[in-house]
Amino acid sequence: MASLEERIRVASGEGKADLLIKNGRIVDVFSGQIEKKDVAIYGKIIVGFGHYPAREVIDVKGDFLCPGLIDGHVHIESSMVTLPEFARAVLPNGTTTVVIDPHEIANVMGLEGIRFMAESARKVPLNVFIMIPSCVPATNMETSGATLRARDIKPLFKEPWAIGLAEMMNFPGVIFRDPEVLKKIEMAKGKRIDGHSPLLSGKGLFAYLTAGVRSDHECTTLKEAKEKLKNGMWIMIREGSTARNLKDLLPLVNPKNSRRFLFVTDDRHPKELLEEGHINTMVKKAIQWGMDPILAIQMATLNASEYFRLDDLGAIAPGYRADIITFDHLGRFRIKKVFKDGVLIAESGKILPHPIGASSPFSLADTKRFPIKGPIRIKPMRREDLLLRSQLPLAKVIQLIPDQIVTKKVMKKILLRDGLAYPNIKEDILKIVVVERHRATGNIGIGFVQGFGLKKGAIGSSVAHDSHNFVIVGTDDRDIFKAVMTIKKMGGGLVAISGGKVLASLPLPIAGLMTKVPVAQVNLGLETLQRATKTLGCILPDPFMVLSFLSLPVIPELKITDKGLVDVNQFKIVPLFGEE
Amino acid sequence: MASLEERIRVASGEGKADLLIKNGRIVDVFSGQIEKKDVAIYGKIIVGFGHYPAREVIDVKGDFLCPGLIDGHVHIESSMVTLPEFARAVLPNGTTTVVIDPHEIANVMGLEGIRFMAESARKVPLNVFIMIPSCVPATNMETSGATLRARDIKPLFKEPWAIGLAEMMNFPGVIFRDPEVLKKIEMAKGKRIDGHSPLLSGKGLFAYLTAGVRSDHECTTLKEAKEKLKNGMWIMIREGSTARNLKDLLPLVNPKNSRRFLFVTDDRHPKELLEEGHINTMVKKAIQWGMDPILAIQMATLNASEYFRLDDLGAIAPGYRADIITFDHLGRFRIKKVFKDGVLIAESGKILPHPIGASSPFSLADTKRFPIKGPIRIKPMRREDLLLRSQLPLAKVIQLIPDQIVTKKVMKKILLRDGLAYPNIKEDILKIVVVERHRATGNIGIGFVQGFGLKKGAIGSSVAHDSHNFVIVGTDDRDIFKAVMTIKKMGGGLVAISGGKVLASLPLPIAGLMTKVPVAQVNLGLETLQRATKTLGCILPDPFMVLSFLSLPVIPELKITDKGLVDVNQFKIVPLFGEE
Repeated sequence: MASLEERIRVASGEGKADLLIKNGRIVDVFSGQIEKKDVAIYGKIIVGFGHYPAREVIDVKGDFLCPGLIDGHVHIESSMVTLPEFARAVLPNGTTTVVIDPHEIANVMGLEGIRFMAESARKVPLNVFIMIPSCVPATNMETSGATLRARDIKPLFKEPWAIGLAEMMNFPGVIFRDPEVLKKIEMAKGKRIDGHSPLLSGKGLFAYLTAGVRSDHECTTLKEAKEKLKNGMWIMIREGSTARNLKDLLPLVNPKNSRRFLFVTDDRHPKELLEEGHINTMVKKAIQWGMDPILAIQMATLNASEYFRLDDLGAIAPGYRADIITFDHLGRFRIKKVFKDGVLIAESGKILPHPIGASSPFSLADTKRFPIKGPIRIKPMRREDLLLRSQLPLAKVIQLIPDQIVTKKVMKKILLRDGLAYPNIKEDILKIVVVERHRATGNIGIGFVQGFGLKKGAIGSSVAHDSHNFVIVGTDDRDIFKAVMTIKKMGGGLVAISGGKVLASLPLPIAGLMTKVPVAQVNLGLETLQRATKTLGCILPDPFMVLSFLSLPVIPELKITDKGLVDVNQFKIVPLFGEE
Repeated sequence: MASLEERIRVASGEGKADLLIKNGRIVDVFSGQIEKKDVAIYGKIIVGFGHYPAREVIDVKGDFLCPGLIDGHVHIESSMVTLPEFARAVLPNGTTTVVIDPHEIANVMGLEGIRFMAESARKVPLNVFIMIPSCVPATNMETSGATLRARDIKPLFKEPWAIGLAEMMNFPGVIFRDPEVLKKIEMAKGKRIDGHSPLLSGKGLFAYLTAGVRSDHECTTLKEAKEKLKNGMWIMIREGSTARNLKDLLPLVNPKNSRRFLFVTDDRHPKELLEEGHINTMVKKAIQWGMDPILAIQMATLNASEYFRLDDLGAIAPGYRADIITFDHLGRFRIKKVFKDGVLIAESGKILPHPIGASSPFSLADTKRFPIKGPIRIKPMRREDLLLRSQLPLAKVIQLIPDQIVTKKVMKKILLRDGLAYPNIKEDILKIVVVERHRATGNIGIGFVQGFGLKKGAIGSSVAHDSHNFVIVGTDDRDIFKAVMTIKKMGGGLVAISGGKVLASLPLPIAGLMTKVPVAQVNLGLETLQRATKTLGCILPDPFMVLSFLSLPVIPELKITDKGLVDVNQFKIVPLFGEE
């Protein structure tokens, strides 16, 4: 970057700017007005408006200009790609800044995973800020790849990329003053502490806020958002692949309070990234649903930069980073050009080729310093380890609820033969197995699940919140065992198995969560897998997504981890067979 | 302060709050709404709303509650009192936080002066944050008590009370890249840099902003404020004792841009502090002049805390400091109760007595550690040193312009006798003398001034921007000399002399700028002085104020320092006699 002295010199009118963007109509997020003027850029920074001599001139012919968009909370891992590939996918959508929470990779690889994400971001033309994961592991009812105590994460807060403590999901830990939780909160003093407190209200919420938590992205109703807003939380309106809250929360926003709202995606799967876009879609929808375009753009830019104190981001003004996007129409908000650090990097939805001879800005971190292949450590196992012995005919079965990540706990009669329990395919009661993959403990959780509809074979995944052990659902032990072995061999990933054969697979060798290939290729892999699961009889549109939440023991009602079946309402491991 | 653990416990509903403020109508600066609810406070912090058991209950019977007010930029020295006495004066007006720029004392005492202010603030029930003076001295055409280079102020930025770099008055130094100026700017990275750039516009302004300056309190017209707003500056609307910009700037503020505005006083003299109040008067006037009361209150609270990133100030919400004021009516905004850190400290315009036996919260810093009596160092002088020799009959005379701090340069014929130049009382051409008082250089600047109207005697002051040397205006050398000696003897202050006798005086022994006595007493002293100056024939309502700006060599057109007469337009020392 050019020195301060050089930038001021060019701003003052001496010397040449690097770039002049001519004839743009600039959305001024400060005054809320739109003004036609030229923007001069030098050394990655906006240095002035109006007439400047420049080495390069780009005429945008009356298009609108607004600051690059900011995603205030996103787990890159959910897109199953690396940071460079994520950047390549979101930049054409106008996103130039992301605040990430590497919670998933931290659960697998601990500090090394967080540092890998930071290192991956270093050369990418996307501003990446990291909130330090606060809850690794999420519970002690599962085996994760790492445990991050307060003393472990403390050094991270000194890093320039660390801007706060990520979503404090353990709100009971705050309210009931878990000393480890309070230590983490105290070490984040002076930085932001993001919240995650679905449905928390009244004194519980007050206690949580008294600790210093200042945002929430889990509001699903107007009532909830209203309470959180007036008690001092910034409301991160989320439009993820699973949770979508924009339409419900939008009516709360008005000019007097809008500064306390920002946009986040939380999780964006490859399909939605490709087909829907990113924060740009939220701006577009907000406008379509009646919001003043200026407010919508402020929410996607200035508001986020103010919350996170990203001093030189979120506006088009002298001294700000030259992260600028152009679009055609205030109503349509269709993005045309994307400038990152004053360089035209994407146009008409596509990343522009980098200059011949130049190294790609989308290259991954040095994998020698950062051993990205998260080790898969499974204790040697045989198919017999999957057998279920029981004398009792009744089992607690995880029953899926369509389109929700909560499940129901139901008691079902199980097929018993010679003291062994088997899936009942006719009644769609399938076996679900969680194999611990981080520490070779040999832990295998086995249970039953209803709702997948498989008539044969098995499907499995190493993406399984929050500890990301292997989770497999299947009709028989042979295919389940084959699934485990296949995922292990790939170093993590997704599989569909039938008759002992791999029908389709998607390797995710980076921590068992991500791959190096681009988003489009990941999406093709996922589509192939989904088609394969249909041939097995699966009735779910996205069975791997459903699978990934079945081991998350903080979401009611019945879940399964490598330690066994979890009754979430009781918050404890329960036996599979028999009533309580 | 109570521990985090204790505060969360009480917030969650366990244990007793310290105080419950009942039946208030709370101005919620986040949502822009007003809601009737009780506020629970524990350990200086707001911990929740609604029903809480509490050790003490105060029923405000339907009064409005809003956060304590914030002055975003003020030079305490202008009030001529110490920080504790300033606090005592502003707290009943609802001010609970001030961001101060100890520029004046820094010009006299350097780092020691800044640290004295910080130390003075330590026990006072007022949140005091310090912006580090950026321009000491203002120019090299005067002798100041200290020179603060970049390396001198660097250690200060590590102090918890240092939140940024104070008004960068040397905007030419920024635009023309003075290395010392750029060093100061770079060391403030990550903190706020306040601006001071009257009338700066276009590329000069862009250059200034490119350096990272993010606010301005010198806007006097809508046009100027509009340009600065849209280029990214927070606009500090100022209503000082001299400069008053509220009425002019208010029409620019609307709900879409109001978050970028805050209120400051810059300078408040004792009279205005006593008779008008402080930030409360700005809120009141803004409302009277048609502003939405919620926006006005946001500008006086949340907006300032967001600009300065004072995380736990500026709102009534769990986790925020219990700095709360009550008032009777949204239109009148008449302040009733003031709670600082959850303690009722002022009511009906008066500070409440502190409990018997308790030490006063308004005590000064330990004067052993901080030798507050700024040394007066004057080289021994005789009355004869004030004689003016000249062969030329024409002199450059400083001509006052009523109600302005700019002056006019006029050529006047001077009384000459035996090669000596004398005041011409009939034409109101008086002698003005600046005596260097910091380093015993023996520098004495002598010139003529027109507009005071004195028929006899002399008046003098050690408050003389920015270097605060002694400045005296008089009709004859005997009284001028007596004034110098009297100010010296007092260790600084203001005097009126006639016939070799002291008519009235106000000692300002702290750095020659401030006194330990309360504001009301200072004001009485000033009134006595002003009456005395009237008996001398003075035609100005506040001659000491006028005097204090005559040595400020950055304000056009003709000024005088200890180094001589300054032609500000030429920005150089010029000879007193003869045309250029």
